[in-house]
Formats: sequence, structure tokens, C-alpha cells
Amino acid sequence: MATDITALLIRYATATPDATARDIMRLSLLDWAACGIAGRAEGAFDGWSATLTTQGPATRFDGACSTAAEAALVNGTLSHALDYDDTHFDHIGHPSVVVCAAALAVGEAQNAPLDAIIDAALVGAEASIAAGLWLGRAHYQIGFHQTATAGAFGATVSAARLLGLTPARTRAALGLCATMASGLKSQFGTMGKPLNAGLAARTGVEAAHWAQAGMTAPDDGLHGFGDTHHGAGATVAFDWRMPRVSHKFHACCHGLHACLEALRDAPLAQAQHISVHTHPRWLTVCNQPDPDTGLGAKFSYRQVIAMAAHGHDTGDIAAFSDACARDRNLVAYRARVSVQGDDSLTEMQARVIVDGQRFDHDLDAALPLDARKTRIQQKARALVGARADDLWAAITTGDRDTFAQLLTS
Amino acid sequence: MATDITALLIRYATATPDATARDIMRLSLLDWAACGIAGRAEGAFDGWSATLTTQGPATRFDGACSTAAEAALVNGTLSHALDYDDTHFDHIGHPSVVVCAAALAVGEAQNAPLDAIIDAALVGAEASIAAGLWLGRAHYQIGFHQTATAGAFGATVSAARLLGLTPARTRAALGLCATMASGLKSQFGTMGKPLNAGLAARTGVEAAHWAQAGMTAPDDGLHGFGDTHHGAGATVAFDWRMPRVSHKFHACCHGLHACLEALRDAPLAQAQHISVHTHPRWLTVCNQPDPDTGLGAKFSYRQVIAMAAHGHDTGDIAAFSDACARDRNLVAYRARVSVQGDDSLTEMQARVIVDGQRFDHDLDAALPLDARKTRIQQKARALVGARADDLWAAITTGDRDTFAQLLTS
Repeated sequence: MATDITALLIRYATATPDATARDIMRLSLLDWAACGIAGRAEGAFDGWSATLTTQGPATRFDGACSTAAEAALVNGTLSHALDYDDTHFDHIGHPSVVVCAAALAVGEAQNAPLDAIIDAALVGAEASIAAGLWLGRAHYQIGFHQTATAGAFGATVSAARLLGLTPARTRAALGLCATMASGLKSQFGTMGKPLNAGLAARTGVEAAHWAQAGMTAPDDGLHGFGDTHHGAGATVAFDWRMPRVSHKFHACCHGLHACLEALRDAPLAQAQHISVHTHPRWLTVCNQPDPDTGLGAKFSYRQVIAMAAHGHDTGDIAAFSDACARDRNLVAYRARVSVQGDDSLTEMQARVIVDGQRFDHDLDAALPLDARKTRIQQKARALVGARADDLWAAITTGDRDTFAQLLTS
Repeated sequence: MATDITALLIRYATATPDATARDIMRLSLLDWAACGIAGRAEGAFDGWSATLTTQGPATRFDGACSTAAEAALVNGTLSHALDYDDTHFDHIGHPSVVVCAAALAVGEAQNAPLDAIIDAALVGAEASIAAGLWLGRAHYQIGFHQTATAGAFGATVSAARLLGLTPARTRAALGLCATMASGLKSQFGTMGKPLNAGLAARTGVEAAHWAQAGMTAPDDGLHGFGDTHHGAGATVAFDWRMPRVSHKFHACCHGLHACLEALRDAPLAQAQHISVHTHPRWLTVCNQPDPDTGLGAKFSYRQVIAMAAHGHDTGDIAAFSDACARDRNLVAYRARVSVQGDDSLTEMQARVIVDGQRFDHDLDAALPLDARKTRIQQKARALVGARADDLWAAITTGDRDTFAQLLTS
């Protein structure tokens, strides 16, 4: 029997969160905040966000306050600007950028406690993953940016929960989201990619607000969207999937991450022969042999291993500079590294032989909660310095005002 | 060779308008304004529009002023609320609701003359028709609301013209529109249908503003959208198609219009036998034999002919009341009318035999400009009273401030 995806999402809107999933969502909120603060600092979107309105109750990374809808738009965009936020591989989407932006904006406007905002973000993330699974792989393959399309439905669920919508109004909100949700993969490589995440967050906020204001929509919820957007209508069960979310710990192409993780404890400084085995797909993506720019470095096995061997923090965005890519010592080190495809590995796995010693890593293997927390805190400090610890303190004590203030200070 | 639809739309953005097309656009602007004023008076969207912001330079039908983007959203929605605005059958879309809303909002914010706003609306309408033709029939058949999807690209062209964007920035705006444009036919019968038009208008305004603010987007313009949204990529030439736009002169189902037009000079009051011949498709759409509500009356050949025979103005929304549907004289008159399918007729044609005398009408036959003007002015007076003449005076004298004021007074 086909899944009644709309009923499933309505169920998420009022579900009591699973405790483990909630712990993960707290970490994702810290990760999201650090990505947004650092994303804003890059400045690429300043001209754009300056065109928006600046009155309302909701905090934005750019220091302005505005309506919940517009704050969701700005924060969803800025937190995805670095492409450094969390990823869920069940449906290939970035859940937190969309739902954290929506939940925080509506939560501030509703004066909701931070814990309620975290729960709303969590059920929204679960809803977006469920919507993505229901849409299926073909939807993504044909060209839809699932972070945005599935994400908009997740943001709707987050907002509906915080607004306390009845199931009937949540259904109307999902029906309105269906006619608003959008986002193309053809935007990748342009500012349109992060914008897609922001638009999805705004769509969720608007759909929920407008349904609350009495706007009507078809009862079929997501179905009109799936029928037109190459949705497979796959079977999806109620479940808590956020514990399997993947956080990025290196500010470079995802294809390099398993290799860098495998080498965390390897004796790289003295090593003479480093042989990287990776899924053959990555050879055309991130195997630039001799990059001479910071951007090129983000797509180079040889360069990132040279960086790691010389103590550069590959979790720090700033580490990927043009100067680093041209550093004579690093360039010389590259010669010690060779890279080969190995189709016995998945795209998530790497095997590296360092002077005869073997190091393996599988990104699909779940990190224990404590280890994940330590890594995310390290990453957040690399992105925003000591503010990372203040953010975490605000999250654990449920201090929403301090948390919001830290996003902009 | 496939059409470079993006280049075609960029060409419209700066084209010098055809004089006939501009004359038609002036009439469509009057028609649009009357539909919007009357649509707002119905009040269905008051709760919704009250949730939006109310600061900015752009006039809204609900009496508030706001940013150009939000005024476009509100005005696009309210002007489509009655479904009484103009239609273009080349691509099956309502061009004016989207582009007039976008052009007026941006024009006010830019302090542009009303004539420049009319030209911007015209090239936007042409662009939306061209985009709709390029997307093709399958896009509509699968479930996209072309008024909104193609309309968003038209609104982008309108806004780009008024902002004076360079061709490169207009291309970026179209690329951004591609990732934002949306709208499903599954919304028909709900408030989501008019909302689609408003969203399309807002999308165009935002895409142009954001491109102006330096946001980047893929160079492929509309192509990412067509590839994902069942676009046929049909060949489309540069042309002025608005002279063939169709205005609604009866506040009822489109299937009844050819019949009512055919009977405009028929001796209905004394007639005993009235035999309607219509395309068979309409028999399942608007042939309710004995409606007893105003809504039912809008889908009944027998009732609208009875109304016309008794001097009721079928161009007046208020004429379609429950009382009228239950009027004893009208109900008795219905017995004189019979309806039959005739597949030698197109969907746009009707043939009516009144006591042996034949009356034909084809909605596809262009109305001469003067006759069209008279009919639109009559319709506008039926909708908004004497204000219709003040609106027309403002349009012909290019008095933007008075025109905008009349929308809300």
C-alpha cells in the first residue's frame, strides 16, 4: 500500500521526540549556528540581504531582525553558504539548514522556549527526510535540489508545530507548501544553491502562517507535488532517522572526508609512500593532482593529505587559502601521495596504505554521541572561536535569547 | 533548432512595444484593476493579507502599502480571486494578473511613469506567453498551473525592464526565477489557485531585485526549469501575441461565454424554443439543468440564458445569487432551453437556434479594438461602478498616482 505521506508528516508535527534524536538535533543546531555565523562572515550575501526588510521579532545572522518568514529566508541561505552543514544520505539532503532556520524564526516570533524550537527542528528534519524518501531518487536525479524541495515540507512541519496548528490546518499548510516548494540542482555552483535552502525555510514558515490565517488548499497535501515533480511515492515508515545524520568535519569536497578520517591517527609527517584507495567516482571529482588555488585544494587528495601532514586544520575554512596551495613544503609533499580507484569500496569508504600500514574509514559507521559532540565542538571553534562554547552552553541550558544574540554578535 | 528561450525573453525585456499590443495592454490593465478591486471586496483573503507587512512604496488592493515584492504577492492574488481576469489561449494562462501586479509594484517603487509600467506589463505578458508556448501542453496537462509557472518568468521580465537591468543581470534574474517558479493545478477550487498568481508576481519581483543586488544564478536561464518540469522546449518566435488575449465578459464558466455572446442580439424575451449547440466537452462542465444556488447558476446554460432573457447582467458577479437561481420566472423559462453536444464546433464556438433563427459565435474571432474597449468598460462599471471611468482616465493620461489611489479608495 502506498504511504499516506501527508498523514505521516502530520504525525511528525505533534510527535514526542525520541531522546537520542533530540541529542543529535542539539549538536546539529550548534553545527548549524557555526556554519551560519561563518557563512555570513564571508560576506557574499550582504548585498542581497540588505535588500530585505528589517523589522520584526526574528534574529538574522546578518545582524538585522525581521519577520519570521524573512529571517528564515536569510538564515537558511547564509547557513548553507559554505556548504559545510550536515547531510543526510537516506535522501541526499541537508536537513538542518532548512528546518533550523524555520524553527528558530517562528520560535522567536512565538516566544517559544529553545527546547521547543529544538523539538520543532527535529520533527521538521524527520519530516523532510521522510518526504525525500517518499519522493525517491528519480526526483533528485532529474534535477531537483532535494534539500529545498523535501526541506520545505520539513520546515512546514516545524512551523506548524510551533504555531500549534490543528491536524486539519497542518494539512492545509502542507497543501500550500506543495504549490510553493521549489529548487533546482542546476543552481549548484552559484549563489542560487544556498538560496534554495533559504527559500525552502521561508516556504515552510509562510505555508504554516497562511494556513493559520485561514487560507485553503487541496486536501491531498504532498500528492500534487509528487505527481508533477517525478516523485516515486515510495513507502516510508514513521522512524527517527536524524541519529544517522552526517556532519562534515573537513571544509572540502565530501569525497575527501573518508580519506582524511582514515588518516587521523596515521604517522603522516614521516611517511614516504601514501597510497589512497577510493571509490572510482571520486577520481573525476576531487583528484586534482597539483592545485594552485584554495578552491582547487578543496578538490585534491594530494593537497589535503599534505595539509594534514603539516598540521593544517582541514576543518578550518580559512586553511584552504591560495598561499597554502602554493606552500613549497606542501607542494613537495604531494609527490609522496598516489591515488587509485577501487570499486570494492563504497562512496563513503576509503582505504589508505601508509608505508605498508593500512588505515580504513567508513563514513556510514555511526560516530558514538560523545565523539560526535567533541568533533562538532572542535569544528565550531575552528569556525567561530570561543563563541562556539557559549553557543553550546545556551543550547544545553535552553537560553534562547543568548543563543539568538550569539548568532549576530 | 531549439529556441533559445532565455535569449528570447531577454529580448522582450528591452523591446519597443508594438502599438496595437500596447492598446490592448491598457485595456487589460483596466480589466485587471476592476477584477482586483472587486476581488478584494469579496473579503476572502483579508485574514491572509493582514499577516503581511505594511511598510513600503507599493500600493495594494487591500489598502495597505508594502514592499514591491509583497504588493505583487497581494495584488496578484486578489486580482485572480474572482477568476474573472483575462486569459490567453495560446498557452492557457492568465497573463495580466501576474505581470500587472509585478509591473505596478516595481514601477511605484521606482517612481516610473504609468506608461512605462504598461510597457513593462506588456513585454512581461508577451514573455509569459512565450515561456508557456516553450513549455508546451504537457507541462500544463501533468498538473502545472501555467499562469503561475510561465507567469513568473513574465513577471521577471517586467521587473527587469523597470529596474533597467543589463542583459546579463536579466539572465541571472531568469536563472533565479527558474529555481523559484512554482504552482500546481491541484490547487484549483481552493484559495491556493489565486495565491499561485500572487506568488508568481512576487517571484518575478524578487528574482529581478536579487539579480540586481548581485546574486548569481546559472547561465542557462529557463532550461533547468524546463528539464525538470515536463517542458517540451517547443520552438517559439518573437511576436506580439497580446492582441489575441481574451477578456471575460460574463461572470460564469468559460464554457457558457460563446453561447451568451451568440445571443447578445437575439429576441430572447419572446422566444419559445432555444436550442444550444456546444462542444461536447462542455456538457459535463457547465450544463446543470436546474441549479438552485448562485454557484450552480454559473455552470448552467439554461439558467444563464434565462437570466439574459430577463435582463440580468451576466457580467455582474452579484447577478449570480441564490435568489436569482430560485426566481420562479427564470426557473419556468429554463424549460424553453435545450442543450446538445456538437463535435463540429470547437470549444470556443457556440451555435444557438432561437425559434428557427440561427446565432453563431466564435470566441477566437478577434473583437475590434473599439468594441473590446466598450465591453471592458461596461464590465468594469459592473464590477466597480463609476470608478471604472476614473481608472480609464488615469490610464489614458498616464496618471500613476491617481490610478494607484483608485485601487484602494
